[in-house]
Amino acid sequence: MSKLFTIGPVEMFDETLEIGGKQVPYFRNDEFSQTVFSASAGLKRLLFNEKGEIILLTCSGTGAMEATVMNCFTKEDNLIVINGGSFGNRFTQICDVHEIPYKAVEFDEIELTKEMIEEVISDDKFTGLLVNLDETSNGQLYDLQMLSEVCKEHNLIFVVDAISAFLADEVNIEKYGIDAIILSSQKALSLAPGLSIVALSEKMLDRVNNIDSKSIYFDFKDYLNNGIRGQTPFTPAVRVIIELEDMVKRLEDKGIENCIKETNEIAVYFRKRIREIGLDYPNYPLSNAVTPVIFPDENADVIYRKLIDDYGFTVNPSGGKNAKRMFRVAHVGKHSIEDTEELICAIEEVIKKL
Amino acid sequence: MSKLFTIGPVEMFDETLEIGGKQVPYFRNDEFSQTVFSASAGLKRLLFNEKGEIILLTCSGTGAMEATVMNCFTKEDNLIVINGGSFGNRFTQICDVHEIPYKAVEFDEIELTKEMIEEVISDDKFTGLLVNLDETSNGQLYDLQMLSEVCKEHNLIFVVDAISAFLADEVNIEKYGIDAIILSSQKALSLAPGLSIVALSEKMLDRVNNIDSKSIYFDFKDYLNNGIRGQTPFTPAVRVIIELEDMVKRLEDKGIENCIKETNEIAVYFRKRIREIGLDYPNYPLSNAVTPVIFPDENADVIYRKLIDDYGFTVNPSGGKNAKRMFRVAHVGKHSIEDTEELICAIEEVIKKL
Repeated sequence: MSKLFTIGPVEMFDETLEIGGKQVPYFRNDEFSQTVFSASAGLKRLLFNEKGEIILLTCSGTGAMEATVMNCFTKEDNLIVINGGSFGNRFTQICDVHEIPYKAVEFDEIELTKEMIEEVISDDKFTGLLVNLDETSNGQLYDLQMLSEVCKEHNLIFVVDAISAFLADEVNIEKYGIDAIILSSQKALSLAPGLSIVALSEKMLDRVNNIDSKSIYFDFKDYLNNGIRGQTPFTPAVRVIIELEDMVKRLEDKGIENCIKETNEIAVYFRKRIREIGLDYPNYPLSNAVTPVIFPDENADVIYRKLIDDYGFTVNPSGGKNAKRMFRVAHVGKHSIEDTEELICAIEEVIKKL
Repeated sequence: MSKLFTIGPVEMFDETLEIGGKQVPYFRNDEFSQTVFSASAGLKRLLFNEKGEIILLTCSGTGAMEATVMNCFTKEDNLIVINGGSFGNRFTQICDVHEIPYKAVEFDEIELTKEMIEEVISDDKFTGLLVNLDETSNGQLYDLQMLSEVCKEHNLIFVVDAISAFLADEVNIEKYGIDAIILSSQKALSLAPGLSIVALSEKMLDRVNNIDSKSIYFDFKDYLNNGIRGQTPFTPAVRVIIELEDMVKRLEDKGIENCIKETNEIAVYFRKRIREIGLDYPNYPLSNAVTPVIFPDENADVIYRKLIDDYGFTVNPSGGKNAKRMFRVAHVGKHSIEDTEELICAIEEVIKKL
């Protein structure tokens, strides 16, 4: 028996696996258009984006981040990038390669505050803000209300990568005045990797329609046009879209508040227990999606390996300077308090045996 | 019972469906690296590209076509594009958007000859040639030997989209001096859509390494660097890569000549029978992958619909001016002479009942 406590792919649900095992159907027909319409309508409701549109991209989350920047901004813009980890850094690389002017709010494993952003903004004129709501590399959940206020006060186009926050933490386009949200299939949606989703607000649609795309594959206008008939311009990840439609229906039945509540309960339980067994987690605000576990004895890498070999439990190793100091445990996907407790017991046993 | 005679997705094999129904594993580890190494090594052998490299992209075939043009050419180049259908036309759009100079050899449902290309080349200086070996929109298989000679004589970088030709027609990097080959998962490889493959020759690797990528997601240098450890820079279509590794092993066991021979036998049988029942197919050379069936009574669209509703057989409808004149029948995927005959009988019955 093996179990994933990784942040993507995550432990998948039986209904999804059943779809995965079936023949992939032909897709240039009404039947598949209905699947796309149904998935898109459900996603609009789950994201509170009833007046906006949904774009289904066959690519990873990074592909969708890049596509969003390319289609929503030009060299005439000037962006604020929240760079508190490797995914924030990726947004800066994307701006660099597309020569979109930006200034980054740079920090490392401390809580992001409004003052830190205001200091970078100072007297300059900015047009947009890019943020990874849950900076997955270290688990920090940024304050969406605060970011929303900054964007309103400075009249900034607000782009939110909610790839790992969606379904784990509150994300609401209407309430927070978000203009684009980026999602990926293999996070809390618990589908196979290979599909990313961009939700554009009504306001952002105007912007996108007035920007010349510098790409054929990532031209949002082409996706929006094809979306009218429930299609994508190029062969999409058909199987993952069918999984998506099924998942979205089940999420709507359950209610998004209940999804977030369940994940929160698992995260809170895990964090309480991890301190009880003598380990720690960071003090900055954390997403419900993932907990970085800090090992005072700098043996995270050894324990990571033992959990796989002896228990079949896979967690997310950390890279670079954090490789020995911490690993990350995800709370999204098919998880319960019970298997979270099993993981805690396994970590405790491994440490005792060292 | 339903069966796909479409050119992608195609009818999948049981072994692939079994993988599709399983939990997608975590991928940033040695086990998945071994899967990537195994799939890449097998693809190198199947494509006769032992000295080159394989890049695994999470995108559609169009994404891979665009990525290849972006990474292999610059504004300093001047390309010949073979434009004999909608996929050739897509190459011209890609060159347009990336401002890569080109001249197109334009023609419509007639056989491409060396003279047609030489006429376009005339006295100009060109650096590369882009071709869709099987122009899937109308089934023409271009003469690879002739194209190879043109490229050698004019010292052109030779880029071949073999998305629907691979495994159905001969494709050989070494023998034909090809510099890049583009493949997609949902054609004759018979996997789910969402993964594309680019094979680069040894010579092309030098070129790629000297071109500044204008993209983060489609930066081949990043894929080549990560490929050294059996990884991709961004979360790939993990499940499709596992399916790919399994399929490549089975293709190697079977032998690529046998794959091509089997598909050829089905195509030849289908074409003989389609004329016996009073229908026709084009006179230009055809790929073994697909046969455009011409309906003298201009009722292809009606018969297309009846085949689905009454028999569960899906073929590829044609678009635009060909919508009533023809549909296309694919011979790749899990197919036999027997189910090809079933399709012929069904077409015959439908026509009789009209």
